[in-house]
Amino acid sequence: MTLYWYGNDMIVVDAGLKFPEEDMLGIDIVIPDITFLVENREKIRGIFLTHGHEDHIGGLPYILRELNVPVYGTRLTLGLVENKLREHGLLDTAKLNVMDGRSNIQAGVFQVSLFYVNHSIPDTTGFAIETPEGLVVHTGDFKFDQTPVDGRQADIHKLAAFGARGVLALVGDSTNAERPGYTPSELTVGEKINEIVANATGRVIMSTFASNIHRLQLMIRAAEQHGRKVAVVGRSMVNNIQTSLQLGYLEALPETIIDADDVNRIDPEKLVILSTGSQGEPMSALTRMARAAHRKIEIMPGDTVVLASSPIPGNEKYVARTIDQLFRAGANVIYRGVHASGHGSQEELKWMLSLVKPKFFLPVHGEFRMQRTHANLAMEVGVEEENIFITELGDVVEFENGRARLGGKVPAGTVMIDGLGVGDVGNIVLRDRKLLSQDGILVVVVTLSKATGHILSGPDIISRGFVYVRESEALLDEANKLVESTLIKLVTDNVSEWSSLKTAVRDSLGRYLFEQTRRRPMILPIIMEA
Amino acid sequence: MTLYWYGNDMIVVDAGLKFPEEDMLGIDIVIPDITFLVENREKIRGIFLTHGHEDHIGGLPYILRELNVPVYGTRLTLGLVENKLREHGLLDTAKLNVMDGRSNIQAGVFQVSLFYVNHSIPDTTGFAIETPEGLVVHTGDFKFDQTPVDGRQADIHKLAAFGARGVLALVGDSTNAERPGYTPSELTVGEKINEIVANATGRVIMSTFASNIHRLQLMIRAAEQHGRKVAVVGRSMVNNIQTSLQLGYLEALPETIIDADDVNRIDPEKLVILSTGSQGEPMSALTRMARAAHRKIEIMPGDTVVLASSPIPGNEKYVARTIDQLFRAGANVIYRGVHASGHGSQEELKWMLSLVKPKFFLPVHGEFRMQRTHANLAMEVGVEEENIFITELGDVVEFENGRARLGGKVPAGTVMIDGLGVGDVGNIVLRDRKLLSQDGILVVVVTLSKATGHILSGPDIISRGFVYVRESEALLDEANKLVESTLIKLVTDNVSEWSSLKTAVRDSLGRYLFEQTRRRPMILPIIMEA
Repeated sequence: MTLYWYGNDMIVVDAGLKFPEEDMLGIDIVIPDITFLVENREKIRGIFLTHGHEDHIGGLPYILRELNVPVYGTRLTLGLVENKLREHGLLDTAKLNVMDGRSNIQAGVFQVSLFYVNHSIPDTTGFAIETPEGLVVHTGDFKFDQTPVDGRQADIHKLAAFGARGVLALVGDSTNAERPGYTPSELTVGEKINEIVANATGRVIMSTFASNIHRLQLMIRAAEQHGRKVAVVGRSMVNNIQTSLQLGYLEALPETIIDADDVNRIDPEKLVILSTGSQGEPMSALTRMARAAHRKIEIMPGDTVVLASSPIPGNEKYVARTIDQLFRAGANVIYRGVHASGHGSQEELKWMLSLVKPKFFLPVHGEFRMQRTHANLAMEVGVEEENIFITELGDVVEFENGRARLGGKVPAGTVMIDGLGVGDVGNIVLRDRKLLSQDGILVVVVTLSKATGHILSGPDIISRGFVYVRESEALLDEANKLVESTLIKLVTDNVSEWSSLKTAVRDSLGRYLFEQTRRRPMILPIIMEA
Repeated sequence: MTLYWYGNDMIVVDAGLKFPEEDMLGIDIVIPDITFLVENREKIRGIFLTHGHEDHIGGLPYILRELNVPVYGTRLTLGLVENKLREHGLLDTAKLNVMDGRSNIQAGVFQVSLFYVNHSIPDTTGFAIETPEGLVVHTGDFKFDQTPVDGRQADIHKLAAFGARGVLALVGDSTNAERPGYTPSELTVGEKINEIVANATGRVIMSTFASNIHRLQLMIRAAEQHGRKVAVVGRSMVNNIQTSLQLGYLEALPETIIDADDVNRIDPEKLVILSTGSQGEPMSALTRMARAAHRKIEIMPGDTVVLASSPIPGNEKYVARTIDQLFRAGANVIYRGVHASGHGSQEELKWMLSLVKPKFFLPVHGEFRMQRTHANLAMEVGVEEENIFITELGDVVEFENGRARLGGKVPAGTVMIDGLGVGDVGNIVLRDRKLLSQDGILVVVVTLSKATGHILSGPDIISRGFVYVRESEALLDEANKLVESTLIKLVTDNVSEWSSLKTAVRDSLGRYLFEQTRRRPMILPIIMEA
């Protein structure tokens, strides 16, 4: 999420979510902290969306809940947004405005137009933002594909015109900054897909990102060219294909797509199945098929299974596991070489910099090392080192009278969502979940007499996630005796303060268990009074 | 771990450990289940170790504890084993026997000799096992390096002689079976290291696997060739280098290696630091240096940091995080292209098969897809498909009179080690840890009167890892009231059976919390009597 701010006017570009890191136990998704937006709600003139990927639109429902400002984007992007808002019950009140190549939106002092770029989802754009200080070019996610699947080239002439006019700043996608050379055209993936379908003797099951409409188009074309029908499985795949067909972003002959329920009525060599699961997601269609746990489809020897994707960093083991299961099920598995990135490599990044010729440059949308490397590329093509800003969440870059500088920070960060709760799981809860996940918990309960302070009932020790009780009875019996003697001693010494009692139990029990087991379960002493 | 068994004689090849999968919460290491070995202890004639990597020797202490049988291996391998056994207090009673290229060990009916191969640790061997049914060649982990760093070529002439004589079965390393072509020589890594050290203006900090003595030798040579001293940080790195120098597997001039405490007295351009942390391990030296948390060394602009390694599958995110932090600290980070695998690729695997010309083939040491691909390679070079066995843990392959078949299973599997406990953390404990890690725990405590069954104290609800209490007081208050009314109703209806009370509390509270939060914390109802 990027905020452009001039005086009393603000516009927001993108409103994404990200998936939790491994140590964010139990967290479902992570969205931007919009405290600053909420504090300045009366200034916000609109939210502009570059494209329909989750890391650019996934956070929108949570934001519109708080600030129902106008939303702008291309038709497919807003089509995917509508589905989301419907799920959140926000569609009726949302103000969605479709933009295209001729749009020129006045949003406060800002004048926003778009330029098309290529990416792994159609209808992807960057924004040209006219400001009183000059023109800012916000690339969004991009690649330059000279042979795009949908025939729509990137707006290189618009970019050249911006550069000729004079651009104040370029805010650019750093995702593939570390990769030398060029990113291959999506058409090369189409050639591989055609080859695979042409040579397959049985069914072909293909999996890719459900949002990669271009690649799904290539798969549908390949099926049609080889006289095969297409069935679709996996909720997100079914939804995306439906939406894309309706809006005209996907083309298929009327008889091509059949119902998934009918797959077993088609000859194997006349069938292509498009499926979710290219990232090894546990509940996805392909993963369930591989485990023979899918209601409609089971992987069989003779099947050709194609993972037309690349593992997102962090998912490598899940993907490997799925590939292994597919092999075991007897499929011929193709899992390398049927992919092209949706982001430009170093040469494309240099093209963007050279076309736009910005005075200032902000490499964004990447880890620090990618930003750093992108900054080096910018210097190679002539941007001054002191005019490059490598920013973090919350950083402000101020432009005034042709100069730019880092101008402090605004409240920013991430908010974790768990179930229905937004932001109610903080560091303490995560820390506790981490402790619990490592060595479990011991609950020590005792009831003391209100009158005398003596033990009326207990102590009882209940453990979860610590040891298998049947095998460790002796250990827990000893632990129980230890707690009992600890408490009796304190009560005899007239220590009645509960916090002291709890601390004593926690310390002595913790020490004992660590000596015996080298483990540190969470210890929860509970004192009742009766 | 592989077991060779003939009549009353058994020998074991390798005794490794593996690191836990992500879902094995709180587990430290995983070792083989040796139930079958223990049941047959009087038959076991010896344990033969191919090389000193953890996945081949890490489990040995746990096995020797139960079965103190003779152990055989090369000098460096046993040197590393000694360190382990010393830590476990088993060194005094262990029977360690050094083998070399001329050894011929009679172990029951088996006659075991070794052949040297190349790998990412010196003194790596395979075993030639003479059995009454014929000769079995057990490759261990191997590559063929035509220009090995330590000058010791693989014993290709021995392998050729085996093949000429006639080999019953080959048991072969499948790790890189999916990789086409050849694995580059370790010397190519040396060339890159030399280039980096030659061009570096400040300090050079290099990290690789602490066991890759070959690569450490290349780094030491490069330092000496460029007039630099070498300091070593990281416990495993210090230990391995010490052991290797003592045993003669590493060569360094007397003045080359300096104390890590003296690094700040040496000019930066005269210093090479060898460090642990190439896998982004959180507590390793390099990771702490990157976070400015190392006692002796801090990363500074001007430093060249080299990660001479490749992320082990599963570690990609940790490595990326470390690289990012190194970039932020201002270092020039080189993290690609300074590595060569220790395992042969497809061409080397075919060389092994062609030299040995086995009748039967067992592809091992890899996931199913690697075994499957290795089997395909074997068929390419002429092994009959029905003579190839893709095995899983516990599978038995029987050889009799020149024939072979799958012969059932023996008890086998994995045992998880957590702290001092061996095998006492089973599936139930892991499942509980998983539940706790996702949504935490609610403990509901109430004290009932022994006499009347009425509530004397409570209910009290204590939560950990569920919600941040201060923000969720209302929710927990409501939950409390719900539990109270549930219990009162049951007590009034004369339901006194504790299991019924607990179930009722768990059900009603669970339902309520899921409706309110879409989360499912573990619910632990505890009833005390007084």
